[in-house]
Amino acid sequence: MDYSEESLRLHYEWRGKLDIRHKMPVETREDLSLAYTPGVAAACLAIAGDPAKSFELTGRWNTVAVVTDGSAVLGLGDIGPLAGMPVMEGKCVLFKAFGGVDAFPLCLGTRDAGEIVRAVTLLSGSFGGVNLEDIAAPRCFEVERRLREALDIPVFHDDQHGTAVVVLAALSNALEIVGKGLPGVRAVISGAGAAGAASARLLLSAGLGDVVLCDRRGAVWQGRGGLDPEKERLAGETNRGRFRGTLEEALRGADVFIGVSAAGLVSEGMVRGMGRDPVVLAMANPVPEILPDRALAAGAAVVGTGRSDYPNQINNVLAFPGIFRGALDVRASDINPPMLAAAAAALAGIAREDGLAPDRILPLPFDPRVRERVAAAVAGAAGESGVARLPRRAPAG
Amino acid sequence: MDYSEESLRLHYEWRGKLDIRHKMPVETREDLSLAYTPGVAAACLAIAGDPAKSFELTGRWNTVAVVTDGSAVLGLGDIGPLAGMPVMEGKCVLFKAFGGVDAFPLCLGTRDAGEIVRAVTLLSGSFGGVNLEDIAAPRCFEVERRLREALDIPVFHDDQHGTAVVVLAALSNALEIVGKGLPGVRAVISGAGAAGAASARLLLSAGLGDVVLCDRRGAVWQGRGGLDPEKERLAGETNRGRFRGTLEEALRGADVFIGVSAAGLVSEGMVRGMGRDPVVLAMANPVPEILPDRALAAGAAVVGTGRSDYPNQINNVLAFPGIFRGALDVRASDINPPMLAAAAAALAGIAREDGLAPDRILPLPFDPRVRERVAAAVAGAAGESGVARLPRRAPAG
Repeated sequence: MDYSEESLRLHYEWRGKLDIRHKMPVETREDLSLAYTPGVAAACLAIAGDPAKSFELTGRWNTVAVVTDGSAVLGLGDIGPLAGMPVMEGKCVLFKAFGGVDAFPLCLGTRDAGEIVRAVTLLSGSFGGVNLEDIAAPRCFEVERRLREALDIPVFHDDQHGTAVVVLAALSNALEIVGKGLPGVRAVISGAGAAGAASARLLLSAGLGDVVLCDRRGAVWQGRGGLDPEKERLAGETNRGRFRGTLEEALRGADVFIGVSAAGLVSEGMVRGMGRDPVVLAMANPVPEILPDRALAAGAAVVGTGRSDYPNQINNVLAFPGIFRGALDVRASDINPPMLAAAAAALAGIAREDGLAPDRILPLPFDPRVRERVAAAVAGAAGESGVARLPRRAPAG
Repeated sequence: MDYSEESLRLHYEWRGKLDIRHKMPVETREDLSLAYTPGVAAACLAIAGDPAKSFELTGRWNTVAVVTDGSAVLGLGDIGPLAGMPVMEGKCVLFKAFGGVDAFPLCLGTRDAGEIVRAVTLLSGSFGGVNLEDIAAPRCFEVERRLREALDIPVFHDDQHGTAVVVLAALSNALEIVGKGLPGVRAVISGAGAAGAASARLLLSAGLGDVVLCDRRGAVWQGRGGLDPEKERLAGETNRGRFRGTLEEALRGADVFIGVSAAGLVSEGMVRGMGRDPVVLAMANPVPEILPDRALAAGAAVVGTGRSDYPNQINNVLAFPGIFRGALDVRASDINPPMLAAAAAALAGIAREDGLAPDRILPLPFDPRVRERVAAAVAGAAGESGVARLPRRAPAG
């Protein structure tokens, strides 16, 4: 179904998807005196005396900035900050619906990484976390790295790490089905941008045998000319055998295909050339690298896509709301790789609990266990990895 | 009554005064496809094709940033951005409760005017207006001036212009009661910061005869040594007779005292020395320059304060919600002096309609006519002064 027309009509009707409400009545002079002056001065002075109380006396403990520069919005590309806003508002809707998080969209009118970093740094006292969204690679890597260094609240680039978490969960269960373990597996990722890079790194840290990333020029390998600094780093971390061929050649004998690239890049023949019981996660949106029926016809054992109208949807909404919920609940200063791995394990565990099948490797986004289990796992991993500032979960919002 | 203890308790209970909600259900795959991907792409593309549609397809038309650096919060002074947040959240509560405006608080961790201007400029595409709040003078003047030049959405420093509007409304009605007209009146303002400067300018533009501003060193006059550039400008616009004395001396024979300074600066004797039927608006918070009963005992004909427990409260909440409501309704590019004057006239008109009395020169904040009349007057003045981008009022939020 094409949702464009109805969605556009609804966007005109909604005139914004978010509503900022106040929690208390404002109907009498006394109401005003308690929520505003003169009573509010007591809360101000308490924070002035102990800045950590900003997490107790204001909404900071539960508020996340959804930040973009509009340079890589959905599959639409560089449409700018104003045009990116409907997506950012939508992201905030998901934060609240699936994580109980108060999220606010901020679209920045600059493409300069330093300006983005500085603006978000100046604003960071108003928030308990920062979710970067739809910022083009390689700028997104620099922005994330510098903000994680500068801030003592979690900074999370969902296009990277949200995707990576769901990919790791899906792949763990898919490999369970075909009787393979991560260490012996060779994966090929089509797309060496934000999602590809983060997925490669998280999979390797989880024990994956090897991964070859491919961009438009073929495999990314250490020594290939013309790599940007980010791909240069990636080349050093992946592709141990310095494989130098095309995507088609890389796929020969591979166990896993992960697509975060473009429609139709993979043929039935390419799937047939893969190893025993290949796993195909073809996540290009809206049209995957290969359609599920064709991948299955070519021998794929398990197939996932980014779409909700096929089984096994690799959907970030399974990850980011629970990840932030868990991080905020323990006032984490960071969202680190152990927290990401814990989120993936929690997601995979829910599907295993329900019984794995080739068309059931992930829970559905509306499953209430998702938020709860992911948040608990992330909060626990934050504590174990030393980034939690609260000893236990506070009541969720 | 002291609200501190109960307010602090409530702030711990509220854990933030704002709640960001979504307007649509998110319970099915179809809901997701309409509010988020893939349907949302249609709204993005519509804005990419026509940026003005950002006011129709997102919440921008009704969203205001409440921006501070925490340098002049209430009477507490320079307590910083974190400690200023309870006030900013409270301001956002008032924006919604009294203006139907979605306001979001942003506390910036810098005292550099250029950095504040740049950060707000980068964010401005996410908002339909900017309310500057509790930024110390003279930095607030530079920040406001540069932002008004840079942005095509309204930028409003409430500590200046919100105060000035309510002062003008109150003074108009007080002078009506004592049978004086603005042109023949000489006023003295104690406090030459944000509120004093803006009140002086708005009163003069409304026709006030003359005004002398006093700071800690006495009258501000052209040629006085050591004035900062802002006071230098003020000196050129006010105090036509180059009066050089103290506040006490300035008040001799004056028609009007306006206090935006500090507790107890005005004695009964000083009021007794003023002209016939003096008007005293003593707005220092929480303790006024002179308490109402003492001012009345000394012969003041009309007395107002900033407090809700005395008659004639000069309260910004009478102004800013309706001013922004009106400006947003016609998508104004600015909030200019004619719009401020129209807001003051609308406020004064409500009180006149109800019958003026020395203890009834302003409507109460909870009067539903306030938002409606102020918004309509501001929208009309925006149209007449050429800054409205919509021909008529859109439905209010």
